[in-house]
Amino acid sequence: AILEAIVARLDGERILAGRHVVVTSGPTHEPIDPVRYIANRSSGRQGHAIAAALARRGARVTLVSGPVALADPAGVAVVRVETALEMRAAVLAALPADAAVFCAAVADWRVEAQGRKIKKTGAPPALALVENPDILAEVSRLEGRRPRLVVGFAAETGDLVAQATAKRARKGCDWIVANDVGAGTGIMGGAENEVVLITEAGAEPWPRAGKDAVADRLAERISGIFQ
Amino acid sequence: AILEAIVARLDGERILAGRHVVVTSGPTHEPIDPVRYIANRSSGRQGHAIAAALARRGARVTLVSGPVALADPAGVAVVRVETALEMRAAVLAALPADAAVFCAAVADWRVEAQGRKIKKTGAPPALALVENPDILAEVSRLEGRRPRLVVGFAAETGDLVAQATAKRARKGCDWIVANDVGAGTGIMGGAENEVVLITEAGAEPWPRAGKDAVADRLAERISGIFQ
Repeated sequence: AILEAIVARLDGERILAGRHVVVTSGPTHEPIDPVRYIANRSSGRQGHAIAAALARRGARVTLVSGPVALADPAGVAVVRVETALEMRAAVLAALPADAAVFCAAVADWRVEAQGRKIKKTGAPPALALVENPDILAEVSRLEGRRPRLVVGFAAETGDLVAQATAKRARKGCDWIVANDVGAGTGIMGGAENEVVLITEAGAEPWPRAGKDAVADRLAERISGIFQ
Repeated sequence: AILEAIVARLDGERILAGRHVVVTSGPTHEPIDPVRYIANRSSGRQGHAIAAALARRGARVTLVSGPVALADPAGVAVVRVETALEMRAAVLAALPADAAVFCAAVADWRVEAQGRKIKKTGAPPALALVENPDILAEVSRLEGRRPRLVVGFAAETGDLVAQATAKRARKGCDWIVANDVGAGTGIMGGAENEVVLITEAGAEPWPRAGKDAVADRLAERISGIFQ
């Protein structure tokens, strides 16, 4: 942490000084009953690295993180949450912000939570799912309090660019960072990432790199907006 | 680890020397699709502590662990798995054993895994669940290879002793270590545990104690069987 602080000071221009950026990271856990839950795979490594990279550039960063086994990044205010509903509340409470980067793998659905443990008797239960709020879409369309730059993430299998481009339009965000999470890519939980940045201008494939390097490049691009 | 090794040497009689014990710990993760899964809440702290306590008493311990954020206990052979099917295979491969302690929170059900990510279009999907193998019941009824002592765990909400006593009979195991995981007990993920040991002789409530202390007491009781 001391070394990181020194590196931050040496980073030259702290180009995001005075800016507030909200970053989400990690999965959400949606309870099924007191002992079971539905989760998304997400180590939080990419989101935490982005929060750290933005803080190194001088931004005040609020990191809203689901359950992860990672240390809090240096110089970042961390709000720990478990469910999508808690994440939404924490994000809205953190606004206003100049930019928001939604890297968390938020569960699309939740289960109406039960107070008692479901017993294993007879047939498996049918899990009735209800849709979670769409934090990215909601913040992208906020009247008045919309951050100037809203960045979403898209983890896809299949036609990455087409799906992510459609997602950008559907959500109303400015950029989508898209990656292929198909089996065999080794990206989920791994140290590297290979993304395509989708902006108004089109699709820009970035070379495969460490998650820290991807975070730095994204923070650099975000800095460009506020220069 | 060095300190633990010294403590182990000082433990006096290594009463389980020459014995092989299989311990399971942690949750299992059952994939829904490439990015989502169903999980049980389990930090693995109790199971890992039991493995360590048995190893300190001289046992050769095979610890079959689901995904946890814990270091491998000193002097224990760890097999890491993700799903219930993988845990079953690892347990059966680890036999024969003198005793087996099934502390893992194995998912009762799994989802027929899908190769592609489920898209959030229209109504939430109905998750069709299929029953997982019951490792505790299977090992308790193994012909020929049944460990002399089979210990199961029961995490219950409601009438703890009645449910755990019924579980002991249903599974065919020797002991059940039962605990109340209702909201407010702070046991799930916490440092302490408050259990009732169910044996042929009946229910024996143990005082609330650290998970290490509960592990020591259980290892002591297991040692008594092999004295």
